[in-house]
Amino acid sequence: MARIVMKFGGTSMAGTERIRNVAARVKREVEAGNEVAVVVSAMAGETDRLVGYCREASPLADPAEYDVVVAAGEQITSGLLAITLQALGVPARSWLGWQLPIRTSSAHGVARIEDIDTGAILASMASGAVAVVPGFQGLTGDNRVTTLGRGGSDTSAVALAAALKADRCDIYTDVDGVYTTDPRIVPRARKLMKITYEEMLELASVGAKVLQTRSVELAMKEKVVVQVLSSFSDAPGTLVVDEDDEMERELIAGVVADRNEAKVTLTFTVPRAQLPASLDVLEKAKDAIGFAALLADDDVAKISVVGVGMKSHAGVAATMFRALASRGINIQAITTSEIKVSVLIPQDYVELAVRVLHTAYGLDAPVETAPEAGAA
Amino acid sequence: MARIVMKFGGTSMAGTERIRNVAARVKREVEAGNEVAVVVSAMAGETDRLVGYCREASPLADPAEYDVVVAAGEQITSGLLAITLQALGVPARSWLGWQLPIRTSSAHGVARIEDIDTGAILASMASGAVAVVPGFQGLTGDNRVTTLGRGGSDTSAVALAAALKADRCDIYTDVDGVYTTDPRIVPRARKLMKITYEEMLELASVGAKVLQTRSVELAMKEKVVVQVLSSFSDAPGTLVVDEDDEMERELIAGVVADRNEAKVTLTFTVPRAQLPASLDVLEKAKDAIGFAALLADDDVAKISVVGVGMKSHAGVAATMFRALASRGINIQAITTSEIKVSVLIPQDYVELAVRVLHTAYGLDAPVETAPEAGAA
Repeated sequence: MARIVMKFGGTSMAGTERIRNVAARVKREVEAGNEVAVVVSAMAGETDRLVGYCREASPLADPAEYDVVVAAGEQITSGLLAITLQALGVPARSWLGWQLPIRTSSAHGVARIEDIDTGAILASMASGAVAVVPGFQGLTGDNRVTTLGRGGSDTSAVALAAALKADRCDIYTDVDGVYTTDPRIVPRARKLMKITYEEMLELASVGAKVLQTRSVELAMKEKVVVQVLSSFSDAPGTLVVDEDDEMERELIAGVVADRNEAKVTLTFTVPRAQLPASLDVLEKAKDAIGFAALLADDDVAKISVVGVGMKSHAGVAATMFRALASRGINIQAITTSEIKVSVLIPQDYVELAVRVLHTAYGLDAPVETAPEAGAA
Repeated sequence: MARIVMKFGGTSMAGTERIRNVAARVKREVEAGNEVAVVVSAMAGETDRLVGYCREASPLADPAEYDVVVAAGEQITSGLLAITLQALGVPARSWLGWQLPIRTSSAHGVARIEDIDTGAILASMASGAVAVVPGFQGLTGDNRVTTLGRGGSDTSAVALAAALKADRCDIYTDVDGVYTTDPRIVPRARKLMKITYEEMLELASVGAKVLQTRSVELAMKEKVVVQVLSSFSDAPGTLVVDEDDEMERELIAGVVADRNEAKVTLTFTVPRAQLPASLDVLEKAKDAIGFAALLADDDVAKISVVGVGMKSHAGVAATMFRALASRGINIQAITTSEIKVSVLIPQDYVELAVRVLHTAYGLDAPVETAPEAGAA
């Protein structure tokens, strides 16, 4: 018997038919003898709808009232999942953020979880009932509703898993795991069976969108074993775990492209959306800093290779530079961390660069030998 | 300075543009020096959407979880109205049912309000802020979300007005008051300036849909002065008040037609929707009761005239029978209360009967003398 937190994202909760599919998966875990708590997102599109109302009401909406509005989406899916589980014969009830409570900081819209009172859930689990908890929401010390920021339900799930000392936190999403790179760019991308917290964190920080960065930080800090898997298939997912000597180690876990960066030549890069604001600030500071001119370029992309293997293996960056040079791709800037090398290249070369690096690091899946259809 | 509870229905809250209109009305009351608490419904259509999800999830949805789902609609509009008021420079905050709390019975889906803790709202009002409270929702003794049944926001508003000892409870809706009859049937129907609780209660019980019956019962019991008015016009509304000797008394306050009745000849009537179930029960009881045959007729309508004037004036029923007979309308059954006479007639005659009675009791508005457009 294991204790499991299962988290389902907005695509998995989009409509009663999909919620039935989610309930069937929860039922399977319960019937396997596990204790289960479920964390749910709002239906896909619902949070956008609610955020849209707030913006229409006022561009500068009071964050405390914004939270009252947008937290409703997860309340709805929590109740619906509890109803659906009961219809399948699985005892279940919803526990809203204020009912547990899930205590957070008072930074409305970007609150941080401080403490989860697990008493009610533990009692519920002990009685054989599934606890359904809305993700994304919490409660301040003075009993006001908070939300954790977009993607916050991942963090809710990991925090709940930590508080419950769960054996595993399964994050169900619309992809079936973490890949060596975007399969839409490289059809031979492979799904990773395991990845370390550090790698996952670097991947998230350079634009891979599988898990919210904060949820990975929290999982790493609290040693929560996270599994990323699809609610639409039965394929095994990717485990996010501590670094482990016995793990079959790849030099590089993944290659990620991020198109949302723009270059300012001093030289540093900023998120593309902040380019106009950055130029404005720098122009104003021109006299103080004393530069002659300001060059901006938003026709760039950042390509990163991430892997704990580079801690112990030299030559990772050299392989990267050589592979890119062989295709005539100019590197405009380089940044590194202990387990990451990122380069800035012209945006037109993004897909080519990703494919070249994926091959250079030996990440391509083996080509399946198709039976010959006949003599040539 | 007065203390006012303002309640806005789903049509008034349907979308951010209409919520802005609501906020402007609230602002006007605040600027007139009044203390204001606002009770809001969900956006028109939203509760139906949420109820639909619950039914899809399970025809026998757990009422406690159903309440978690459907209470979200009023949470959303509460936050949005608070944001909109702030944008107009009016200090405001939302107080959800569980935050006050509004304590109710544990009859999920049809809960009754037992107590409203007004401490937070009184403090909020004293500081000059408008309190925005979601209608329809409350909290059981063991902290579970409840709802009061469809139309329950009217009851929330009256209960809050009673608890706050408000001078008035203004119910804003999509009609601008209570009319002597349905203006779609009788163009010369008149809006009433005042109506007694008893009359309003009888009108609601025979099918007039302006206010939820329970809200009128509560207003009568707690002596809450209710005003029904439109959020889309500045016309004065209708006051619902205690009977008052100085009130300019009409013999009859209104004429109401109800098409949702079916006749079972024993003879009694049942709501039309319950006719098949009623016949079924009676057929099964046939031997026990010992009747020879069972006749059912759903081609009937109930026409009621309501007015406290009939307590002190004889001849009301006689006027009714004479007026209907003069048009050849057969009366199939008659029921009465102290201030109401209802008759059952063939459904085809509904509009004619309403018009004839409206005229017979002198309720028609005077015909305005239109200026001649020219010589004939």
